[in-house]
Amino acid sequence: MNKYAIIVGGGTGTRMGGNLPKQFMLLNAKPVLYYTLKTFFESYDDLQIILVLPLEYTDMGQEIIDAYFDKERVRITAGGNTRFQSVKNGLALVDKEAIIFVHDAVRCLLSKELIHRCYRQAVESGTAIPAVVAKDSIRLVTEEGNEAIDRNKVMLVQTPQTFHSKIILPAFQIDYKDRFTDEATVAESYGIKVSLVEGEENNIKITRPIDLVIAAKILGDRSQGL
Amino acid sequence: MNKYAIIVGGGTGTRMGGNLPKQFMLLNAKPVLYYTLKTFFESYDDLQIILVLPLEYTDMGQEIIDAYFDKERVRITAGGNTRFQSVKNGLALVDKEAIIFVHDAVRCLLSKELIHRCYRQAVESGTAIPAVVAKDSIRLVTEEGNEAIDRNKVMLVQTPQTFHSKIILPAFQIDYKDRFTDEATVAESYGIKVSLVEGEENNIKITRPIDLVIAAKILGDRSQGL
Repeated sequence: MNKYAIIVGGGTGTRMGGNLPKQFMLLNAKPVLYYTLKTFFESYDDLQIILVLPLEYTDMGQEIIDAYFDKERVRITAGGNTRFQSVKNGLALVDKEAIIFVHDAVRCLLSKELIHRCYRQAVESGTAIPAVVAKDSIRLVTEEGNEAIDRNKVMLVQTPQTFHSKIILPAFQIDYKDRFTDEATVAESYGIKVSLVEGEENNIKITRPIDLVIAAKILGDRSQGL
Repeated sequence: MNKYAIIVGGGTGTRMGGNLPKQFMLLNAKPVLYYTLKTFFESYDDLQIILVLPLEYTDMGQEIIDAYFDKERVRITAGGNTRFQSVKNGLALVDKEAIIFVHDAVRCLLSKELIHRCYRQAVESGTAIPAVVAKDSIRLVTEEGNEAIDRNKVMLVQTPQTFHSKIILPAFQIDYKDRFTDEATVAESYGIKVSLVEGEENNIKITRPIDLVIAAKILGDRSQGL
């Protein structure tokens, strides 16, 4: 089936302290975004990439593509004011029936195996949302105070959130709601039950300076086959 | 009020790969446990420490105390097969009415401010459970599948879980149940409503090799006043 990866680097990353959006921060001398793109490029030969960036950074994105990748396989578009709008802008470039991965640009440590797992599940059931079980004890804030909840039932959601185009394209026609924190919640508002797949502990978001240190360590271990 | 910190290093840490329990792994040339103890020692001059370790590692714990700390302020006892039993063994050494902190030995990056915050809250309300808001999108596994849940209502629980002795001592007389993942759940089984306090993002558990790398970075930033 056709495959599109919408890589969303919408934010300008004020938490990192610097001025550069997080997806352009350097990790072992290459931008974070480079690693994200490389894994998607290598996951499937026929996968097309739609890169969504803040308007003022689309040129910087193009430079990374030109330097490292096959530009025939990539289109770049500007993001919106919300993640919902950014993803919607990316979806506007999907022109065939396909499996569509929506992925955070700053989750640069995902594996090809995760992409394949999401693909297989989305082909089968229409959706695939990677998630990992919580490792901490969890409490839920309630009106009366708070209560313990079985941590084995609490899943921390990751990306790539993966959908058949027949699901995600119409789902994104509904009006934006505040509770859309990811694409799965959009699909649910459209009436779809989403299915989970096993995520990856190392599939972290680079949002703080320390995350770059963690990412460098993970990449180092991988290059040594650990 | 009297103050006891029960520092629990029960596990033998198979996830780390090595044979040494995680609390004894070296972090900047000192055991992880050293940092945990140091922060508690410095938090209050009149705080007494009860260190709970696997029986075969109590000598190693004693060596750390002898090398770095005032041994008059510390007692060491052997842990049990469960965290519940380990904490119970520690509580058996509490001989005065007190505020009692129960803390994971491998959470070596907590601050004195967090200890003070827990103390004040426990004096006031009897309990203080540090927790931080989840940063990921969260799904709850249900009988029908899974559903999104507002992440602002999901709190990830940390330690030191802090209690007035009048609450935690009788609470630990009840029979062990599988759902006791921490001391807060024990107190709840005893009929107590626990109150939360703001935890700390850096108050992580050292459970994987990469956590040592993260911890070293955090300690390095602190020593530079970052």
